[in-house]
Amino acid sequence: MRILILGGDGYLGWPTAMHLSARGHEVAVADNYLRRRLSREQDVEALFPVPNLAQRAKLWQARAGHEIKHYVGDLCEWDFVAQMFSEFRPEAIVHYAEQPSAPYSMLDRRAATLTLHNNLGVTANCIFAVREFCPDAHIVKLGTMGEYGTPNIDIEEGWLEIEHKGRKDKFLFPRQAGSLYHTTKIQDTDLLWFYVRVWGLRVTDLMQGPVYGLWTEENQGDEQLFPFFNYDEIFGTVVNRFIVQAVAGYPLTVYGKGGQTRGYLNIMDTLNCIRLSIENPPKAHELRVFNQFTETFSVNELAERVHDCGKRNGLEVKIESKPNPRKELEEHYYNPAHTGLLELGLEPHFMTEDVLDQLLATVLRYRENINRDAIFRGIKWN
Amino acid sequence: MRILILGGDGYLGWPTAMHLSARGHEVAVADNYLRRRLSREQDVEALFPVPNLAQRAKLWQARAGHEIKHYVGDLCEWDFVAQMFSEFRPEAIVHYAEQPSAPYSMLDRRAATLTLHNNLGVTANCIFAVREFCPDAHIVKLGTMGEYGTPNIDIEEGWLEIEHKGRKDKFLFPRQAGSLYHTTKIQDTDLLWFYVRVWGLRVTDLMQGPVYGLWTEENQGDEQLFPFFNYDEIFGTVVNRFIVQAVAGYPLTVYGKGGQTRGYLNIMDTLNCIRLSIENPPKAHELRVFNQFTETFSVNELAERVHDCGKRNGLEVKIESKPNPRKELEEHYYNPAHTGLLELGLEPHFMTEDVLDQLLATVLRYRENINRDAIFRGIKWN
Repeated sequence: MRILILGGDGYLGWPTAMHLSARGHEVAVADNYLRRRLSREQDVEALFPVPNLAQRAKLWQARAGHEIKHYVGDLCEWDFVAQMFSEFRPEAIVHYAEQPSAPYSMLDRRAATLTLHNNLGVTANCIFAVREFCPDAHIVKLGTMGEYGTPNIDIEEGWLEIEHKGRKDKFLFPRQAGSLYHTTKIQDTDLLWFYVRVWGLRVTDLMQGPVYGLWTEENQGDEQLFPFFNYDEIFGTVVNRFIVQAVAGYPLTVYGKGGQTRGYLNIMDTLNCIRLSIENPPKAHELRVFNQFTETFSVNELAERVHDCGKRNGLEVKIESKPNPRKELEEHYYNPAHTGLLELGLEPHFMTEDVLDQLLATVLRYRENINRDAIFRGIKWN
Repeated sequence: MRILILGGDGYLGWPTAMHLSARGHEVAVADNYLRRRLSREQDVEALFPVPNLAQRAKLWQARAGHEIKHYVGDLCEWDFVAQMFSEFRPEAIVHYAEQPSAPYSMLDRRAATLTLHNNLGVTANCIFAVREFCPDAHIVKLGTMGEYGTPNIDIEEGWLEIEHKGRKDKFLFPRQAGSLYHTTKIQDTDLLWFYVRVWGLRVTDLMQGPVYGLWTEENQGDEQLFPFFNYDEIFGTVVNRFIVQAVAGYPLTVYGKGGQTRGYLNIMDTLNCIRLSIENPPKAHELRVFNQFTETFSVNELAERVHDCGKRNGLEVKIESKPNPRKELEEHYYNPAHTGLLELGLEPHFMTEDVLDQLLATVLRYRENINRDAIFRGIKWN
């Protein structure tokens, strides 16, 4: 299948490109290196440098014998999008191309404005391009579990039947997010759901939890094909960051009570979720939603696991509670469904001791690169 | 109170400015004349020319002895917004500044993009300006009943308590709109609700139905102070358009079965709803939602009323069913609550024979101006 990956330079974008390419799909990636630019501007660059898309494509060609096309440009610019879609004519689009950091979106007005315009602008152009160049193509959109927030009821997969005063209807599950970044993903959902109804688009919205890890089947033995590995407060996801903190002897930063519970998944599972979604597309006129995670943990539980991992590997790891700079519940009910992807055949890679030990061992090799000032900035929500 | 009206040149913006000014408030208006530009570009200009804001402010000063300040510029530009907020320091902001037409938003990709960027850009800048210059100010945002769509359950005022698997929580009432324009208003709500929670803004979201009418207390006897009166498919609301069609001998265009039911209100009621909301502000950290209409009618009922109005006034009015260019239910359940504004003291001006007759009489004086080609364009949703 011809698959176009928007945001193909990112933490998940490039690994997804290799994974789909390895399985025989014809893959192209598009990116404007926004994440690299923002990381540099905020002095929170990744743990090790990664080659650019042209270089990565060459490395992959040499390793796997498959071509990955790359388009470098801003997906908010219609001309760029139109030229690419008319040339590549994708049958499926994976849409990762968003400013992906909650703290960045709360940094200041300019960062908020960039997040809002980039995320909605790319989603809108993606919809318009599908409509114009490949109306039957399947859009696989990365949403986030954070769209749901932490409601006091069970979280279903995207939809909820509501009975009210003796009448019934089915609606999108209520969404109320904890950051502007997460809110733009809700707004993306509004847009996609509208055009699914009106134009009959076929869309899968993957409500993903925080991802961790570095190794995938496709980069075994070749660290030049690693994804970005951010470990900072802004762009680093929590497990990756905690592992780096453990290596750096920097106490694990737990915000407030640490009872914040979320659903997590291994990067290898992300790739399989995307592939399973593409290989089993929804019908036209359907917005299919999956909750994409494999296990739930509280921040305290994660800190304990990383603490124990450090101990197994001869590191003394401290855990430190910080006043919470965010606005979120620190103790709450959390019971989200996540059966859809399992039914499609997902076989989870859980957060075992081996998985954490392997990640720690890899980070240890790059310990000289760690910028301690990147780890905690205390970006305040209020 | 110092009140800033964003979109102060529009159908409702200017009448609101005069109404609040007449009640002793200090009023400023801001607009970039976008609506005028788009009406001209689409050749669907209003029934009669209206003076620009500088001229209207002079006319009002001469009539009422009150100053209305005007700021001309694009509210998507932060510099303009910041300069205005820092100078005027509003205590309340009325936010009408959106591309307000559903058919326009469905016209083509460029119109859709303009709608999305304008509507969300202005709302975001309004929020950021309040945060920076007047954090205690009250934002009165014009939403639309169209955000709810036509669900199969009773529509409450903004909020819904949901019981699911034995647990309960309160959420925004589910929203799923029938056009991109209406969808941008849902996205506005997402944004406002997020910043209400995080920054403690005080916001009233007025879910307004289609407005009709021309006369208000403030323009009696001075037609130079009339609002824009669009009667075309793009910018004209249905009752105003039907009255013009009756005058022009143009059969009333009913889309499909005509069972589409909505809540309507007289322009005088809009002004009172805005004033009552401002004079009774919500608390900080509160997103208050009112459903702003006074009566519900199906399109068939409206057509009948305008038909009868024509007959009373010696006009033969035909009603013609057209294939529906939109994607909407033509027969549906519709039972929206609307008690909040009545409790604040709203005394509705219903759609009586006198009200329709007065509107028809006014339009008759401008009958030579009617551009029959503006009335129906058949802009398709799909």
